[in-house]
Amino acid sequence: MKYHKIPDEAVRRLPIYLRGLLSFSEQGRKNISSHNLADFLGINHWQIRKDFSYFGSFGTPGTGYNIEKLIRQIRKILKLNVTSKVSLVGVGNLGSAILAYPGFRIYAYEIAAAFDTNAKKIGRKIKNITVEDVSNLHTLKKRKINLAIIAVPQDAAQRTADALVKADVKGILNFSPCCIVVPKKVKVMNIDICTDLACLAYYIPAS
Amino acid sequence: MKYHKIPDEAVRRLPIYLRGLLSFSEQGRKNISSHNLADFLGINHWQIRKDFSYFGSFGTPGTGYNIEKLIRQIRKILKLNVTSKVSLVGVGNLGSAILAYPGFRIYAYEIAAAFDTNAKKIGRKIKNITVEDVSNLHTLKKRKINLAIIAVPQDAAQRTADALVKADVKGILNFSPCCIVVPKKVKVMNIDICTDLACLAYYIPAS
Repeated sequence: MKYHKIPDEAVRRLPIYLRGLLSFSEQGRKNISSHNLADFLGINHWQIRKDFSYFGSFGTPGTGYNIEKLIRQIRKILKLNVTSKVSLVGVGNLGSAILAYPGFRIYAYEIAAAFDTNAKKIGRKIKNITVEDVSNLHTLKKRKINLAIIAVPQDAAQRTADALVKADVKGILNFSPCCIVVPKKVKVMNIDICTDLACLAYYIPAS
Repeated sequence: MKYHKIPDEAVRRLPIYLRGLLSFSEQGRKNISSHNLADFLGINHWQIRKDFSYFGSFGTPGTGYNIEKLIRQIRKILKLNVTSKVSLVGVGNLGSAILAYPGFRIYAYEIAAAFDTNAKKIGRKIKNITVEDVSNLHTLKKRKINLAIIAVPQDAAQRTADALVKADVKGILNFSPCCIVVPKKVKVMNIDICTDLACLAYYIPAS
């Protein structure tokens, strides 16, 4: 079965579904209704049903969805059935928080290399990763690490992206609060930790 | 004009549009087409047109959208025309990164209080904010700070949320990698820095 037609918005929700399903699975549950999953995740139940239908998963009335089957399907779609190696560029506060983040394992991602420009940080070991000089970024190609996380200051983001593209990186998760420009063959996902905060006031009634 | 019917997904894109529009405005541009904005932000142009139509903004053929007008509209919808005070709970790596993040000012958010449980951190000044003991969370009500960011370890997330709800906080941005349960009147936005990474491999062609 091909999954090419899953819209981006739905793809972005798949890891959230996966996390919820794993939670229920750990509790020993076998099946789940879209309503229960919706309550747990704070996503509309019709949205969940629509998203699952993109990859041909339809719940059974009265029983709901088979949790293990859904977990397998989502893992396969997101290619999480094999571990993906990721490099991290920038080991400041945000980079250190990313290195320490417990959630990466759930999604079968392994941070396999970390880079910085700060001589005080280069050579230091953080969470079993020895921080390397950014001038070594070109080695990523040989090491077959084709995903990268950018957590550098705004003014260094574009040149970091350029170096990553040269090193044949295919996917970039950009935490720098600016847009980076890369060739079309490279997929960039921008995470701005402020944008969600900026929505929050919208939902708060005037007092 | 009422904006009640803007879907959540579109609301979450408004700060991203705002950031892009501010960029073009700084360059002295007066108008922008949905295609140009789409290229800059990596969002589909039809999506942009649809989102803008929710609040009655339609571009002029051949000219596009008036940038300043759009900026004013989005700021008004998101209530960013007045500064919102936010508290931060948890001043570890992630919390420190949040305190240092330059993007908050764009969105008129001001981190006005920071809390931690670590005696070594309490009393320290970070970016002009003196870190307070979490036992002071109840003072948020009197200080009229009704938004909060949770950046504590997973096992402390729910009790932090409970304390925030008691302090009459109306909106929570949760960075802990777990779902917190709060009364319906409180709006929670969960940010999992891993979920976007988990999507990245989906877009990478097998090598």
